[in-house]
Amino acid sequence: METIKWKTGITKVEPNKIVTKGYRQDELIGNVPFSHVVFLLIKGVLPNEKEGKMLDAILTACIDHGVTPPSSQAARVVASGGVPMPTAIAAGLMSIGDFHGGAIEKGALFLKDGVKRMKKEGKNIEEMAAILVKESKEKKQRILGFGHRIHTDDPRTKKLLSLADELGIAKDHVALSKAIAVELEKSLGKKLPINVDGCVAALISDMGFDWRLGKAFFVIGRCAGLTAQVYEEISREKPMRRMWSADVEYDGPEEKKVD
Amino acid sequence: METIKWKTGITKVEPNKIVTKGYRQDELIGNVPFSHVVFLLIKGVLPNEKEGKMLDAILTACIDHGVTPPSSQAARVVASGGVPMPTAIAAGLMSIGDFHGGAIEKGALFLKDGVKRMKKEGKNIEEMAAILVKESKEKKQRILGFGHRIHTDDPRTKKLLSLADELGIAKDHVALSKAIAVELEKSLGKKLPINVDGCVAALISDMGFDWRLGKAFFVIGRCAGLTAQVYEEISREKPMRRMWSADVEYDGPEEKKVD
Amino acid sequence: METIKWKTGITKVEPNKIVTKGYRQDELIGNVPFSHVVFLLIKGVLPNEKEGKMLDAILTACIDHGVTPPSSQAARVVASGGVPMPTAIAAGLMSIGDFHGGAIEKGALFLKDGVKRMKKEGKNIEEMAAILVKESKEKKQRILGFGHRIHTDDPRTKKLLSLADELGIAKDHVALSKAIAVELEKSLGKKLPINVDGCVAALISDMGFDWRLGKAFFVIGRCAGLTAQVYEEISREKPMRRMWSADVEYDGPEEKKVD
Amino acid sequence: METIKWKTGITKVEPNKIVTKGYRQDELIGNVPFSHVVFLLIKGVLPNEKEGKMLDAILTACIDHGVTPPSSQAARVVASGGVPMPTAIAAGLMSIGDFHGGAIEKGALFLKDGVKRMKKEGKNIEEMAAILVKESKEKKQRILGFGHRIHTDDPRTKKLLSLADELGIAKDHVALSKAIAVELEKSLGKKLPINVDGCVAALISDMGFDWRLGKAFFVIGRCAGLTAQVYEEISREKPMRRMWSADVEYDGPEEKKVD
Repeated sequence: METIKWKTGITKVEPNKIVTKGYRQDELIGNVPFSHVVFLLIKGVLPNEKEGKMLDAILTACIDHGVTPPSSQAARVVASGGVPMPTAIAAGLMSIGDFHGGAIEKGALFLKDGVKRMKKEGKNIEEMAAILVKESKEKKQRILGFGHRIHTDDPRTKKLLSLADELGIAKDHVALSKAIAVELEKSLGKKLPINVDGCVAALISDMGFDWRLGKAFFVIGRCAGLTAQVYEEISREKPMRRMWSADVEYDGPEEKKVD
Repeated sequence: METIKWKTGITKVEPNKIVTKGYRQDELIGNVPFSHVVFLLIKGVLPNEKEGKMLDAILTACIDHGVTPPSSQAARVVASGGVPMPTAIAAGLMSIGDFHGGAIEKGALFLKDGVKRMKKEGKNIEEMAAILVKESKEKKQRILGFGHRIHTDDPRTKKLLSLADELGIAKDHVALSKAIAVELEKSLGKKLPINVDGCVAALISDMGFDWRLGKAFFVIGRCAGLTAQVYEEISREKPMRRMWSADVEYDGPEEKKVD
Repeated sequence: METIKWKTGITKVEPNKIVTKGYRQDELIGNVPFSHVVFLLIKGVLPNEKEGKMLDAILTACIDHGVTPPSSQAARVVASGGVPMPTAIAAGLMSIGDFHGGAIEKGALFLKDGVKRMKKEGKNIEEMAAILVKESKEKKQRILGFGHRIHTDDPRTKKLLSLADELGIAKDHVALSKAIAVELEKSLGKKLPINVDGCVAALISDMGFDWRLGKAFFVIGRCAGLTAQVYEEISREKPMRRMWSADVEYDGPEEKKVD
Repeated sequence: METIKWKTGITKVEPNKIVTKGYRQDELIGNVPFSHVVFLLIKGVLPNEKEGKMLDAILTACIDHGVTPPSSQAARVVASGGVPMPTAIAAGLMSIGDFHGGAIEKGALFLKDGVKRMKKEGKNIEEMAAILVKESKEKKQRILGFGHRIHTDDPRTKKLLSLADELGIAKDHVALSKAIAVELEKSLGKKLPINVDGCVAALISDMGFDWRLGKAFFVIGRCAGLTAQVYEEISREKPMRRMWSADVEYDGPEEKKVD
């Protein structure tokens, strides 16, 4: 039986020595902020002060949005069944998909393609945004990352974008995103501002992260909020409590006998 | 149908305003380090500078331990099946149980009971440690949080403990933990030093966290490492690759016919 | 690097030959009912006709209980986030814990200990039941597997128990379970009949299954119902729809400024 | 707070009455085989004897393929961390994705499109198969559901296909699948027979199931095998045992100091 060969560029483990992406963990611990270590793990290099600050802000912007998102509901309902905390947190994270946090991934890919095409076709940001909005209207495809069920002016987005300007992080992807919001307003006759998913999509693109990592930042940040959700559920509520009310109507097949 | 009433002390969501544990998220973002926000989410108050630094260090100490722990293996093998990143990360977290990270939870409970009993019975740290080691020997029950398969002197533990001293975080639970290590060495005739789980158990106890949150810190920190593991798997390896070699011998029932 | 040795008694895989618990899969397929194959997988032998029928009935009794149990809610809410079907089904199964289906495992252990003790102490079923109910009252510990939020006379339990009598499956564990229900009624002054979890606990015990497998039968049966729940969710509902109503009140810390 | 309205066509729950897809559960239990109840849950009607037999065979064909598939590995490694059985089984199911069982879903969609196009373009089965194989070669896209790492003549496929003929279940989708295998052999100069995923894809298509349910049958069947895998792991092996050997080489960034 031949032995499988593995190569990994993440962590080297030797007796009494653990090296992650080139740095000894005992040098990272207490010296480099956790959010910078997250950057290191994913990007392979430590961030400069501005990048570190931006990523830290992104993680905080993802922590929690109350008890109603699918992730909170899933984590709490699974916790109420009486399972270990990691299982309940995991159930919450599993709901992060095409429709919950999905705009980060797809939004980042859309912006990346947009910026690439803009350069190739020699357009400026405003022209490119106008083209993309027009095309999406023709194809009846929503551009992901704009509009929110509750917020018309999401405080997280606002803060993240002003911070990105201040830190000099915002570049083409953020600019294209802002220009699309302007075009969407013209096209729809109402504001459809960048939401937090769309904002994170633009920021990680300008920071050079692979769009396929879009959901990862949401997962890492939200993991903290879900821990709080699960802990509140188990420390404050009864097991298997009735959590939500809904008027349930059965509209399946008529009652009948087994032949 | 009566409406269910919910009370939550985590996050208040109103149009254009999100308040977590009393703080507007747009004030936390970019102003308070992510690790301090984690503290806030779980403890309900912002940490002081020393507590914040200690928690940040704990999260970093949990990030990753290479490709061999069950969490890395589970995350990678699930990722190799071709699923979304959050599903694969979740599978990794689900392996965190009684035997993987379990010593944090149970170790913290053990130390808590030890410190309580010490005060009640008017013993000092050394006396209490001697009693606990003696009892565990008699009951043939391992004290959790000591010894490691690979490290005889875990660099993470060393760094966390020195930082805890420096920051004035280390109190009775850390002291009892250290005293137990001394007694274990006497009793066993060989070193069985505090491992990273046991160290985190002692630290969160001295920081006043509920022992039931033991695995949560590991989950939040490791979530970052698992993201890197999953990303490496999907960006560098072939789908459904053969990951591990093992010589498999079938020793089940003899082959027979269905009657 | 030494090769790990594995022994497995489940399935032998050779080119063009797959043998499970001694039987070629191509002989099982189409010749042995799926539920009997489940028995084979877990018990290591094919069931006789009566055992097979009983296990088949148990699996059917576990399939589904509408949209309100934690497993249905978790599966649906995770599905609504836009993830693959297996992830959503898995999330539903993950809610099966100490409080959701937990009575099967713990109930089976309780009955096993009860029957053992009965024999050891030379008591009859009725005496043992009286003792157990008295003790549970004194210790203020609920005996698991009795009473249901909705059903006073659960149709699944009724059918399973009559079938077990008919097939000659019911023995000491079922008898003890029935006797406990009688004693509980005397003790409480109201009926607290065996629920479906308690019934499955008694039946699998009389069929000789390890109590630790208690949740497994529920998992296998419910997996089918969760598939239907997830399929209904994705084929009939909008993504991330608001599923449940709840009046949410924030009672966390007062709003304050970051210093 | 308005109450959410739910409609469900799966199960109606009333006190002492549970009706699934029109049938009282107490009439299904013990009277209708579990695999037929699975059919009912998903299709909304009870199968006739032949359909019931075919689905039963499909479920059995999915039960287990030893310790090496990602689902078995994930379930076992998560179980070894010390978690509840449902969590470990769930982790196994979560690995079922685009590359593990994925050919059922995509294969069924491909066959469905193929049969539709055949009718529209007035081609016969052989002509359509030739076109599809030619096109896939030109586009360099693999047709999913053919070939297996271990089996050149998968015993499960052989048995399922002969049963489908015998029961009169096999129609256009199976025929197209067989014709594609013939064309692939011509095109590649070697046999690339229908594998079990491709076979299930063809069968469920001929039985009228939605292709999006492709993985569901695999999930339901495999759930039984994963139960056996998890049970073997916890009853026979040590917690957190080293499961697999692999020669791990770190090829990440060179070791360096934190500035």
